[in-house]
Amino acid sequence: MLLHRAVIPRLRQACRLQSVPSRLCIRACSTNDSLQPQCPSLAFSGDNSSTRGWRVMGTLLGLGAVLAYHDHRCRAAEKSPHIYTREEVRSHSSPETRIWVTLGCEVFDVTEFVDLHPGGPSKLMLAAGGPLEPFWALYAVHDQPHVREILAQYKVGELSPEDTAPSTVKTSDPYADDPVRHPALKVNSQRPFNAEPPPELLTENYITPNPIFFTRNHLPVPNLDPETYRLHVVGPPGGQSLCLSLDDLYQFPKHEITVTLQCAGNRRSEMTRIKEVKGLEWNTGAISTARWAGARLCDVLAKAGHQLCGTEAHVCFEGLDSDPTGTAYGASIPLARAMDPEAEVLLAYEMNGQPLPRDHGFPVRVVVPGVVGARHVKWLGKVSVEPEESYSHWQRRDYKGFSPSVDWDIVDFDSAPSIQELPVQSAITEPKDGETVQSGEVTIKGYAWSGGGRAVVRVDVSLDGGLTWQVAELDGEEQRPRKAWAWRLWQLQAPVPAGKKELNIVCKAVDDSYNVQPDTVAPIWNLRGVLSNAWHRVHVRVTP
Amino acid sequence: MLLHRAVIPRLRQACRLQSVPSRLCIRACSTNDSLQPQCPSLAFSGDNSSTRGWRVMGTLLGLGAVLAYHDHRCRAAEKSPHIYTREEVRSHSSPETRIWVTLGCEVFDVTEFVDLHPGGPSKLMLAAGGPLEPFWALYAVHDQPHVREILAQYKVGELSPEDTAPSTVKTSDPYADDPVRHPALKVNSQRPFNAEPPPELLTENYITPNPIFFTRNHLPVPNLDPETYRLHVVGPPGGQSLCLSLDDLYQFPKHEITVTLQCAGNRRSEMTRIKEVKGLEWNTGAISTARWAGARLCDVLAKAGHQLCGTEAHVCFEGLDSDPTGTAYGASIPLARAMDPEAEVLLAYEMNGQPLPRDHGFPVRVVVPGVVGARHVKWLGKVSVEPEESYSHWQRRDYKGFSPSVDWDIVDFDSAPSIQELPVQSAITEPKDGETVQSGEVTIKGYAWSGGGRAVVRVDVSLDGGLTWQVAELDGEEQRPRKAWAWRLWQLQAPVPAGKKELNIVCKAVDDSYNVQPDTVAPIWNLRGVLSNAWHRVHVRVTP
Repeated sequence: MLLHRAVIPRLRQACRLQSVPSRLCIRACSTNDSLQPQCPSLAFSGDNSSTRGWRVMGTLLGLGAVLAYHDHRCRAAEKSPHIYTREEVRSHSSPETRIWVTLGCEVFDVTEFVDLHPGGPSKLMLAAGGPLEPFWALYAVHDQPHVREILAQYKVGELSPEDTAPSTVKTSDPYADDPVRHPALKVNSQRPFNAEPPPELLTENYITPNPIFFTRNHLPVPNLDPETYRLHVVGPPGGQSLCLSLDDLYQFPKHEITVTLQCAGNRRSEMTRIKEVKGLEWNTGAISTARWAGARLCDVLAKAGHQLCGTEAHVCFEGLDSDPTGTAYGASIPLARAMDPEAEVLLAYEMNGQPLPRDHGFPVRVVVPGVVGARHVKWLGKVSVEPEESYSHWQRRDYKGFSPSVDWDIVDFDSAPSIQELPVQSAITEPKDGETVQSGEVTIKGYAWSGGGRAVVRVDVSLDGGLTWQVAELDGEEQRPRKAWAWRLWQLQAPVPAGKKELNIVCKAVDDSYNVQPDTVAPIWNLRGVLSNAWHRVHVRVTP
Repeated sequence: MLLHRAVIPRLRQACRLQSVPSRLCIRACSTNDSLQPQCPSLAFSGDNSSTRGWRVMGTLLGLGAVLAYHDHRCRAAEKSPHIYTREEVRSHSSPETRIWVTLGCEVFDVTEFVDLHPGGPSKLMLAAGGPLEPFWALYAVHDQPHVREILAQYKVGELSPEDTAPSTVKTSDPYADDPVRHPALKVNSQRPFNAEPPPELLTENYITPNPIFFTRNHLPVPNLDPETYRLHVVGPPGGQSLCLSLDDLYQFPKHEITVTLQCAGNRRSEMTRIKEVKGLEWNTGAISTARWAGARLCDVLAKAGHQLCGTEAHVCFEGLDSDPTGTAYGASIPLARAMDPEAEVLLAYEMNGQPLPRDHGFPVRVVVPGVVGARHVKWLGKVSVEPEESYSHWQRRDYKGFSPSVDWDIVDFDSAPSIQELPVQSAITEPKDGETVQSGEVTIKGYAWSGGGRAVVRVDVSLDGGLTWQVAELDGEEQRPRKAWAWRLWQLQAPVPAGKKELNIVCKAVDDSYNVQPDTVAPIWNLRGVLSNAWHRVHVRVTP
């Protein structure tokens, strides 16, 4: 439910149409203190520090926009606001009845905004007829002036004083119970928690230690009791469903494989440098490798009576992580992959010989070798076979690739396939961009991986921005044919050309289908910032 | 057995070391007329027209090289040459005894050259101890002054007059029985026959008509009698081999699929523009699509008692096309692909509803969907399951990809995997490079395809060299999941930006693993000129 800055230009345009002169106005509003820190920026009291805070923010955001916003608010304040009860608001929860939401004491009709919501209409609809606060607590990115600025234009009135009492919806911090994390992780988002290991640690080990394995959460981490945990596997029509305890799962043959997981947003920060995208600012660390053990999904599905059918079908996964409405994280993979023993899809309960850490799906997660991280559903609660892909937001309205020409105004998510296998990828982890290296010899290290079990067969490294190339040495485990689920680490020791004051180091990998990485970022830029696999480049200085 | 120009600089260097002044010398040599046109350029008779011809060629090739060559020959002529019998020559057929060959009346010790032979040592070794003529008749590219120039430096003597009588090896034109071809084909090589349809015909039809389907032959086309044709399928150890007539093959379930075949060298001409490569100058037409029908390889292998085993194995194919020593064209694919019914590997006997044309493997060829053309062995004679890949030159010493930094001096063919699945590819077939288009609107057409059954999900087209992109409309058949064996044709109708005098049209495709084509050719250049799949570019002028 991220509100994207791409919407701002429209708002600015709307503001320019107003001829009412801008002025600051101060007004009291009965504010629910328990909703701090969401509310104070909506409450323009006479408190000076608050006004000062706004002024500073205004400077940061561009005074024009802030003044336009104040102008909006003042116009609203000039009229006596309409007063609604929560009951009335609740009745506005569909396009037919119009879609209302509340924030603090204010009521907004967001019907016209639903289709513009960068997180997708479905996510905003979760809040239809009710308060935004529980969702904003989950997606903290909303609590910013430019988001409130957008919201303000949709204000239709205020809540009746009786209804501005503390909401019955639990608004305590849903992330309070998240686990403690390793301090080495570079945090891209605290709520939900998203963090990556620093590059210099990433390729220190072929197997990434659990505490620094990159973490990509979409929701708060559930705290599940292994004694009462049950995995619900829906049986085929006329068949029998399974309700598996952990002990039941341990009865299936234990299968162990080394698999690299990569987030679709790995290296997104390089796309952001081209043009703003919606998503977390991952560097090169949204990728890690572990030894996973668990039951094979094909064995569990077979036990439930499933078999391959002639028509295309999908295995849908639901996590036990959920938002305040109970909507769980979800994703799906084709049944053909799930049922193929050679594809080695796991219901994993061990990560590097340990029970899964909470951040990585304790007690059970899906591991889909060769496939984008988003399908490796954590805290797995339910497995079902469906004729269609998962209807989850993350399957249908996210994790898809588009042409660089597609923006949020014209994007048609149904026009692109959901990301499953990822393309060939590589990155330099040593030296780091901006570093200074010794003259003489330079050691360059990195990783390379490809989706679909395709092995990396070569990594080329250039010291001159891609004019000439040297072949790096591949380390790490030799992969099995068609099952190259794990990365190769690589390194190159190369003399620094005499007299060079700087080096433009570049790497590119080739997989066994001879797919290669594209040269540059701009032609693969996409509005969601996924699939960022252009040549990786670092620029270093050489000490004389 | 192509002799590559990369060797010439070495020769030139060698020539510079000689201080004997250059002069033309004329000398008689008993020449076997039947070996025309190989011999005359070796016979410096007093014939004026021949000398004139040489002069013209010399001018074309650079007089220096020709003089250096004459210099060589003259030095040889100055001394009384050693005289050898054919029997003696025959005894020099291994590195231990040294490797000799003859051409016309001359004897050469090519021991030091064997490892430098660009076609690979194994191909040159086929001629060890005997005459080169039968091979040069097959690989007409040898019959050029710069090749003779290289050979001259290895001369050790001449054949005894009794032994210069016509060789017992059949030297008549092995291509005389090749079929008649369609005049629309653009011929890249007559012997062996290699030709492609012109781009404007290529995407006229989703299914390429048989007469203009691109043809990639490595050897003369065998003329096989369907009545006596037999396919030999070697059984597993302790099992029984099969000897299948065409009627036997018809007894297996008939399987029909639409498959695009692409030569690894498609679009090689774009690599040649970067730096010279060894190979035929294919443009964008070494790709075509047909509806193939035949028996599934997995059914035939199962009938012979083969099954998947735990260790990696390979299915080796041998063609009935062969060189004068009886060496057949050969290639292999992994057993896992061959045995997988979903991979749909065929022993095809029909192409677009007709018996296979002779140029395309009559009566039976292999069709390996999603895999490079070189593995689709034509005129199939033998199938066997082996622990190793085919030992064929074309499997082990050709059809592999290398870093742009690798040249013929350092190439290690064992270091790269044989090409199987091909990477994502696309090209523009309309308008053509250099064409003039009308202002107003331009229609751009082309094809896109990817290996391994990966579907093309999008084609981006740019009119400004890649700065901005538009999404093309995909035509052709919707593909089955994981079995996108055939191409998509695509087109874009776009307004020509007002005032533009020229357009730099570019296309790039994306497959369902979200692999993309690289931006430029130079970083994927390789010494053999294979896997040329950078963005395709055409430059057109716009009429005012």
